[in-house]
Amino acid sequence: MTTAPVAEVLAGKHQAGTTIQIQGWVRTKRDSKAGLSFIAVHDGSCFDPIQVVALNTLDNYNDILRLTTGCSVKASGMLKQSEGKGQSLEIEANSIEILGWVENPDSYPMAAKRHSIEYLREHAHLRPRTNIIGAVTRVRNCLSQAVHRFFHEQGYCWISTPILTASDTEGAGEMFRVSTLDMNNIPRDDKGDVDYSQDFFGKETFLTVSGQLNVETYCTAMSKVYTFGPTFRAENSNTSRHLAEFWMIEPEVAFADLATIAQLSEDLLKYIFKAVLAERADDMAFFEQRVNKDVVKRMQAVVDNDFVRMDYTDAIDILIKSGKKFEFPVEWGIDLSSEHERYLAEEHVGAPIIMQNYPKDIKAFYMRLNDDNKTVAAMDVLAPGIGEIIGGSQREERLDVFDARLKEMNLDAQDYAWYRDLRRYGTVPHAGFGLGFERIVAYVTGVANVRDVIPFPRTPGNANY
Amino acid sequence: MTTAPVAEVLAGKHQAGTTIQIQGWVRTKRDSKAGLSFIAVHDGSCFDPIQVVALNTLDNYNDILRLTTGCSVKASGMLKQSEGKGQSLEIEANSIEILGWVENPDSYPMAAKRHSIEYLREHAHLRPRTNIIGAVTRVRNCLSQAVHRFFHEQGYCWISTPILTASDTEGAGEMFRVSTLDMNNIPRDDKGDVDYSQDFFGKETFLTVSGQLNVETYCTAMSKVYTFGPTFRAENSNTSRHLAEFWMIEPEVAFADLATIAQLSEDLLKYIFKAVLAERADDMAFFEQRVNKDVVKRMQAVVDNDFVRMDYTDAIDILIKSGKKFEFPVEWGIDLSSEHERYLAEEHVGAPIIMQNYPKDIKAFYMRLNDDNKTVAAMDVLAPGIGEIIGGSQREERLDVFDARLKEMNLDAQDYAWYRDLRRYGTVPHAGFGLGFERIVAYVTGVANVRDVIPFPRTPGNANY
Repeated sequence: MTTAPVAEVLAGKHQAGTTIQIQGWVRTKRDSKAGLSFIAVHDGSCFDPIQVVALNTLDNYNDILRLTTGCSVKASGMLKQSEGKGQSLEIEANSIEILGWVENPDSYPMAAKRHSIEYLREHAHLRPRTNIIGAVTRVRNCLSQAVHRFFHEQGYCWISTPILTASDTEGAGEMFRVSTLDMNNIPRDDKGDVDYSQDFFGKETFLTVSGQLNVETYCTAMSKVYTFGPTFRAENSNTSRHLAEFWMIEPEVAFADLATIAQLSEDLLKYIFKAVLAERADDMAFFEQRVNKDVVKRMQAVVDNDFVRMDYTDAIDILIKSGKKFEFPVEWGIDLSSEHERYLAEEHVGAPIIMQNYPKDIKAFYMRLNDDNKTVAAMDVLAPGIGEIIGGSQREERLDVFDARLKEMNLDAQDYAWYRDLRRYGTVPHAGFGLGFERIVAYVTGVANVRDVIPFPRTPGNANY
Repeated sequence: MTTAPVAEVLAGKHQAGTTIQIQGWVRTKRDSKAGLSFIAVHDGSCFDPIQVVALNTLDNYNDILRLTTGCSVKASGMLKQSEGKGQSLEIEANSIEILGWVENPDSYPMAAKRHSIEYLREHAHLRPRTNIIGAVTRVRNCLSQAVHRFFHEQGYCWISTPILTASDTEGAGEMFRVSTLDMNNIPRDDKGDVDYSQDFFGKETFLTVSGQLNVETYCTAMSKVYTFGPTFRAENSNTSRHLAEFWMIEPEVAFADLATIAQLSEDLLKYIFKAVLAERADDMAFFEQRVNKDVVKRMQAVVDNDFVRMDYTDAIDILIKSGKKFEFPVEWGIDLSSEHERYLAEEHVGAPIIMQNYPKDIKAFYMRLNDDNKTVAAMDVLAPGIGEIIGGSQREERLDVFDARLKEMNLDAQDYAWYRDLRRYGTVPHAGFGLGFERIVAYVTGVANVRDVIPFPRTPGNANY
């Protein structure tokens, strides 16, 4: 007898008439007066549970009558076409072994009823058992597999940039400190300052906020690289878009300019969205029906349409000429806010925009200066329905221009010694971008808060589990 | 004109006679008296560089004569069969654009000569430009892609378990603290203790040492899951096998016992080794020739041979009967040390061993108690040439047995409330294992120290870059 995942059975990979075994958890059960029970069993392999039909001739039918949502079972029997509506195949059980009961079914936190998304978040260890978090988990997995596949097929190397860093290059403002010093007995140096030379790494050490600077070292040797790992921000932001711990994808490409990575960002998004549409139709149908009716449509629109390239300077003109009243007034030099980005992507263009060439004063020190001396080769991808989902730039590869920029920004070249080495030895034009993985999962699923698309969200005041 | 990666050109994907462009860095250059130069250019896409032939009729031939190792170039010309020995195809350049010079070639840290592996480690930002670290990077990438592919093909979901955790369940002995408290002004509570309620997460928070307990929550909903992420140990271990930050792979399978995951561990290792043998023959030939002559042979042996299942109790008998003098004396109840493991795998069996059913007193609280009440359903995979590379177990899914075990070990059930919930609600037999990714990369490449198979190693006293 074959034991098979529910997904495989429902996909018709086993013929009706064969005997098959499935294992999973009871989602719902309905007892008929005719002396049989219909048990919906899910095992996480797909959205739909499979229906197991139990006749009262089963030895343990009295136990089966006591089954409730969440109980674990192993059921075997004949696979047959279902007569029920909306069911394709069902199992007529000749044996149902009960593996685990639910203690006090009435107080089971995941009992079969509608729970608020906030309630589920409070039970993060049990919420994967629900329809919505199960679906999020499969879609998240589908997206992550597609990301790796996309880069691998194109000859990129995955690089694990460090999580812990004593490097000062990103600025320590919003970083978490990592230490093994005894907090009740902090060592001090002669001046009375904390003596980090006695800490584990011999220096003050933090959690990374981005792998970009590190991955540039591999880009300028392997040509095409990407990171996919956790990053951290100690921002006290209690919004639906911020997490203290989140996963980021950062490709970095040598011999590339802004146009190269603009195309790469478009290709990547189309590739991973296509994967979800092709592989997770079941989960997407649920999100479309229950969470946001536009999720499939807007993802299909991203796949079908060319992204529009637009210069920042042109965007400012469009916003001014729009005659719209914005909360934040528009003039050249401002950082575009969410209302501006959404007006451009949703109302003006109606498609994703790759916004390019931002004023240098609102962008980071490592971005490549354009010939106008006013803008840098930076880009953001703005998607209808969410706003910015990707940010990137060509990097300043010219040592003299880079050093001048550091000086202008009052940064000390000494702190960037290893980063400068990449420009001293065989420098090449290169460019890359960053994509916050949870924002993509939220966009795809329509789930409003990024806390619900990562297994155990870390936010101010919460690192439970 | 097509621009192509060197790997693609050397693999014969472009016909001799076509005009092609490549981009990369000079590995070596040789000037012939006949008025031409042979430049070996690599771009990280494969082990071998491609030979670019530059005639002195090129406009910038004087500059070309000045090229040194590490300079970056863009070269185009006709692709032709090479007359040189060991070269398949070469490019007869009609243009070589020099993108970046090397400042002071004599002091270039990666100049073309043999460097010690320790020296390279001191220059972690430049070492990917070397043959050895380039090869390690491609093999590491190949292994990680194969890991994701293996699990995806079998219907596993990748789960990103949290990096930051306020959970006490693993014990804080060797953990890094993560905090945003001002180290010069640590808040105290009424009793004079550190007041972590004022810290970012409102509790004392650490870096994870394993995703296992967290991933069990997803296993008992999705059935087949795995983690692949960074983990941390604040151990003061300066050995060739330890890192403070390393990547771990942890599958967890529901409705599974020890035999299931023993087979899974064998299948996984065979699958990822086959991928390396199939995809990275170039890099493996280098490791075989320069690093360890056994690397290919022993990997092939793992692929070709069945792993031997052996009970811990039988292993103790074998060790005692061997008559060998071991540094650590052998008796039932000891934790096997490296000398024991290597004797068993290398001398006694000559193949990987899956050692099973260890004494409960040397194993963790969550491992499933066997019927003998003395051993637990734990397993280690011991590989010839390295020793333990995988450790796993069936988990205790019976609440009453689990609670008794906690009591026996003086652990407080309250601290395990969410973990116990998995046993209170629809508990299922489940099992999993952990595999330290760097140890696998070291085993595959033959590189002796794990510090050289991760881009930026973190060890006591070192979190540079």
